[in-house]
Amino acid sequence: MRNIAIIVSYDGSRYCGWQVQPNGVSVAEKINDAIVSLTGKRSKLYGSGRTDSGVHACAQVANFRTEFSAPAEKTVPGLNAFLPPDIRVLRAYDVDDGFNARFCAVSKTYEYVIQNSRVLSPFLVNRAYLVRYPLDIDRMNEAAAVLRGEHDFTSFMASGSYVKNAVRELSRLDVRKQDDIVTITASANGFLYNMVRILTGTLIYVGAGKLSAEDVRAILEKKDRAGGGPTVPPDGLYLKNVVYTGEYSYVL
Amino acid sequence: MRNIAIIVSYDGSRYCGWQVQPNGVSVAEKINDAIVSLTGKRSKLYGSGRTDSGVHACAQVANFRTEFSAPAEKTVPGLNAFLPPDIRVLRAYDVDDGFNARFCAVSKTYEYVIQNSRVLSPFLVNRAYLVRYPLDIDRMNEAAAVLRGEHDFTSFMASGSYVKNAVRELSRLDVRKQDDIVTITASANGFLYNMVRILTGTLIYVGAGKLSAEDVRAILEKKDRAGGGPTVPPDGLYLKNVVYTGEYSYVL
Repeated sequence: MRNIAIIVSYDGSRYCGWQVQPNGVSVAEKINDAIVSLTGKRSKLYGSGRTDSGVHACAQVANFRTEFSAPAEKTVPGLNAFLPPDIRVLRAYDVDDGFNARFCAVSKTYEYVIQNSRVLSPFLVNRAYLVRYPLDIDRMNEAAAVLRGEHDFTSFMASGSYVKNAVRELSRLDVRKQDDIVTITASANGFLYNMVRILTGTLIYVGAGKLSAEDVRAILEKKDRAGGGPTVPPDGLYLKNVVYTGEYSYVL
Repeated sequence: MRNIAIIVSYDGSRYCGWQVQPNGVSVAEKINDAIVSLTGKRSKLYGSGRTDSGVHACAQVANFRTEFSAPAEKTVPGLNAFLPPDIRVLRAYDVDDGFNARFCAVSKTYEYVIQNSRVLSPFLVNRAYLVRYPLDIDRMNEAAAVLRGEHDFTSFMASGSYVKNAVRELSRLDVRKQDDIVTITASANGFLYNMVRILTGTLIYVGAGKLSAEDVRAILEKKDRAGGGPTVPPDGLYLKNVVYTGEYSYVL
């Protein structure tokens, strides 16, 4: 039995998210079906983690075990032939049996894309969040500096969700602007439910002058979702990449 | 009666082109309907020129006469409220009665976007043309230099189309690559039918080593469509901007 890792990019607009759901079509379901069509057998697909409805991925990672005998790289055109054009397998690797896309991941990077303009471009429908008022990028980066590092991020977790431990190490959080596109990049060893979307909503409030970096420090320390900014829509959110432990560092 | 110029961006994927057609929904028809909804009266809409089915625009220019009394800039959110999200009015200006979006245009710029990769990104479906074999950008730029300037472009006009005079001044034609995206930019005082798509198809043949810059010179001089490269699909083509005579140079 082989273990194959695949790198998958998708436009999440039409899907109910990564995870198979009773209502709605998921990205994983489409890939499961393509694996059956290609190999003739159903395999269990392990993703690096869920992405929500409407969230996109540039390089989601998943693995599955199969007796399919063709070289791993042949599974790229093979699976794509059975997938819709808004889901594409970009690369595939043979990995040893110990590799699991979820449990071997050591960090992930997300990007959130904002168009800071009066009108949302036709080319960014479902793919960016429109913010009409001007954003002060320097202010946003000051607040981002407060959030970077190891903290209990309970204030930036969807209310009602439960985890034993909300401590995460946010190794990167920064904001940059090119033309009217503002991109927030966040890397961490793990993310809480809706964490990037709440961090982004809070940084937008900072950029608009509604909150200061000191307010953000107080929100973080309060460990209460009530104080933070809004959860922004999934449209602008992209899973950029997943980093694996040293022995699997070639999976990217 | 006022004369209002509008700058319009659209994703052409769902439309049969700019021009109103008996079969299929056109971009101009959608804008005509929005003008009626906003102003209560039908106006004649003049576009800078047609774009074909599936072709996109970053900044198409059009004008219409109206007795609608609100400031021109209010027509931006006003028309957008009645337009689908894949067609957006970006700006609007009051122009004097002599302005006509078609006849006052002195040059136009188009871009053609190619993804030079094994797999078309889910984010570029209907928005770029996938070329799987490697393209030599330097070779393409050598051939582009042969085509720049004032020439009879009969060889780069759709066969069966008729114009009195196929001489155009191609003031810009260049090729650049960033990551796996190859962009061809073409500016001219006018374009023949399918000209950018045939120029692109020919430059792709050059980039693949099927034609040389000298072959391209021979094709140009032959004044016969038969010799050139293929007409590439509309997916990758974008009307970038239209430049107007000095007195209307603020329309952009």
